[in-house]
Amino acid sequence: MIHRQGTTKRYSDSTSFNGVVYLVEVPSVEEGDVQAQTRDLLSSLERTMAAAGTDKSHLLMVQVYLTNMARDYDGFNAVWDAWVPEGTAPARACIEVKGLARPGWKVELVVTAAIKPISQI
Amino acid sequence: MIHRQGTTKRYSDSTSFNGVVYLVEVPSVEEGDVQAQTRDLLSSLERTMAAAGTDKSHLLMVQVYLTNMARDYDGFNAVWDAWVPEGTAPARACIEVKGLARPGWKVELVVTAAIKPISQI
Amino acid sequence: MIHRQGTTKRYSDSTSFNGVVYLVEVPSVEEGDVQAQTRDLLSSLERTMAAAGTDKSHLLMVQVYLTNMARDYDGFNAVWDAWVPEGTAPARACIEVKGLARPGWKVELVVTAAIKPISQI
Repeated sequence: MIHRQGTTKRYSDSTSFNGVVYLVEVPSVEEGDVQAQTRDLLSSLERTMAAAGTDKSHLLMVQVYLTNMARDYDGFNAVWDAWVPEGTAPARACIEVKGLARPGWKVELVVTAAIKPISQI
Repeated sequence: MIHRQGTTKRYSDSTSFNGVVYLVEVPSVEEGDVQAQTRDLLSSLERTMAAAGTDKSHLLMVQVYLTNMARDYDGFNAVWDAWVPEGTAPARACIEVKGLARPGWKVELVVTAAIKPISQI
Repeated sequence: MIHRQGTTKRYSDSTSFNGVVYLVEVPSVEEGDVQAQTRDLLSSLERTMAAAGTDKSHLLMVQVYLTNMARDYDGFNAVWDAWVPEGTAPARACIEVKGLARPGWKVELVVTAAIKPISQI
C-alpha cells in the first residue's frame, strides 16, 4: 500500500500512498549560497519525484524553510520561479526558522505532490 | 486532475487533488495586531475554500505560524476559537517562527482540508 | 466523511479522511529532557494512531519541531530511531523553531499517516 524510496532507520526520501507522494529535501552540501543550495536541492527533488512516478508540474503544497529570510528570500525565489513550470505552482509557505539539522544548510523543503495517473506516464 | 486557484509564477492560492485541498494563507496587510490580521486571513481562507468546493467545517490539519508567541497566542486563539464551527476543529500545530516573508506579518496558516462530496454542495 | 478524535473548540487530536489520518502531538508535561518528552509524546501518538485504525509502521510524513537543535537533536533521534519499525520510516523534516505554545515543551510533531485497509486490522 505504502511505497517508499531511500528508507533508512530515520527517514525515507519519499513515501507514496493513494496517489500522493510526500518528500523532504535538504541540500547535499553545507557550503554555497542559497541559490547553489536551492539548485542542488531541486535537482534531487526532480530525481526523487521521477522515481515516484511524477514530476515538478504535479506539486500540491510546498513549505519552504529558510534560515535567513532577509539575506536569502530573493535568491531562493529567483531559482524557484525559473524552476516551476508555468501555470503549475503549488500552494506555498515560506518561513524563517531558527535553524536546520546541519549548521550550513540555508534551505529545506517539505513537499506534497500528486502522482501521475498510469495513462500519463 | 489537479485543480488550482490564483496561480502565479511562484504559488497558487490553492491546489486540489483526490478530494483534498491544500492552501496557504497570509494577511493581506502588514499593519494591525494579530487579531485584525487573523480575521483578515480567515475571511480570505473562507473565500478560497468556498471556491474550491468546501468550507471551514471540513478542515483536516492546520499549521499556525506566529512570529511572537508570548504577545500573540491568546489573541490568535480568541479569533480562531470563535471562528471554528463547533465539533469540527482540525488537528492543529502552533509554532513560533523567526520570521515570515513580510516583516509586518504576524501570522501565516498552512491548511489541508477535505472537499465536500458533490451531494453536499 | 471526516472522522475526528479528541475534538475541542480549538483542535482535534486527529482527523481522518480518504484513508489518511492527520495528527499533531505535543508532550503531556513541560518538565523533563527531550528524551523523556519524546517518549511521552510517541506513546500518545501510538494510542491516537491505534484509535484511528493504524500504527507507527504506516507513517507517511513527519515534521519534527525542536526548540534547541544543538542540545536536543541527538537525544530526539536516539528515541526516534529506536521507535520507528525497521523499513517503515516516513519522509521527515527536523526544524529548529523559536518556540512552541508552552515554554517547557522541547518537541512537537506534525504527522500524516495512512490508515490500514480493513483486511489488515
